[in-house]
Amino acid sequence: MRLSFILSSLILCALSAPAQNSQSTTEPAVRLVLERQQEAWNHHDLESFMTGYWNSPEVTFFSGARIYSGWQSTIERYRKSCQSEGREMGKLEFSDLNIEALATNAAWVRGTWRLTMSDGKTPHGLFTLILRKFPDGWKIVHDHTSAAE
Amino acid sequence: MRLSFILSSLILCALSAPAQNSQSTTEPAVRLVLERQQEAWNHHDLESFMTGYWNSPEVTFFSGARIYSGWQSTIERYRKSCQSEGREMGKLEFSDLNIEALATNAAWVRGTWRLTMSDGKTPHGLFTLILRKFPDGWKIVHDHTSAAE
Repeated sequence: MRLSFILSSLILCALSAPAQNSQSTTEPAVRLVLERQQEAWNHHDLESFMTGYWNSPEVTFFSGARIYSGWQSTIERYRKSCQSEGREMGKLEFSDLNIEALATNAAWVRGTWRLTMSDGKTPHGLFTLILRKFPDGWKIVHDHTSAAE
Repeated sequence: MRLSFILSSLILCALSAPAQNSQSTTEPAVRLVLERQQEAWNHHDLESFMTGYWNSPEVTFFSGARIYSGWQSTIERYRKSCQSEGREMGKLEFSDLNIEALATNAAWVRGTWRLTMSDGKTPHGLFTLILRKFPDGWKIVHDHTSAAE
């Protein structure tokens, strides 16, 4: 009787502890990934910005009706849209971040993005991110970004 | 010694079993939610379509740069865009579904949507969904939908 109680308690603790703790530990870690991305972008450092993404052919980026599969396609999409002739990166600001842990190693984020360009224009929109925790930290495994029409 | 081995084994089993099984049980259950949504849409039954979403003020729908918060706002957005005068629902088809379990009670989906309208036009685009498992089944808690520009 006593042994079965100890066993049940231990299993319950083992099962519930990660779920209880994941939001409080995940939220600041994921927020830091996005803060570093914002900082890197505003230093025009696309390579550092891209360290927020999972460096894998399996990472995906959705924009409008376009799918970019893989880290390489994603960085090329950014280079083409922001660093090619006549283009500029602008000043990036993420806001209204809503970060939710789904497991000890998985989270998702809703948020808004806004660029301020040198001509005063402010393209903006929304994003949804899925992040996984890897040995080298939290990384975006999927990014769905949309812009004001 | 023997007791500690039993305890460790039980805790390990309790921790690893859900993770191992979640993909195989989650994938067909989540696919069914989307199949039922597609069927309901194609019967012009918006109320049944909406049962795929979490009936909560916390459910969110992102489209372009617009945020619809809550089940009621979401159904009103669908009514306005698809059931108002001069509008039609068209024939809906989901494809390229990629369903991934993140925990025993959480999953995300990437996919493409395509409508075929009576005039032959085919608006289309991408979606990212977050689903949670509730006592009454898997429900979409967040939908980010974008269209070809």
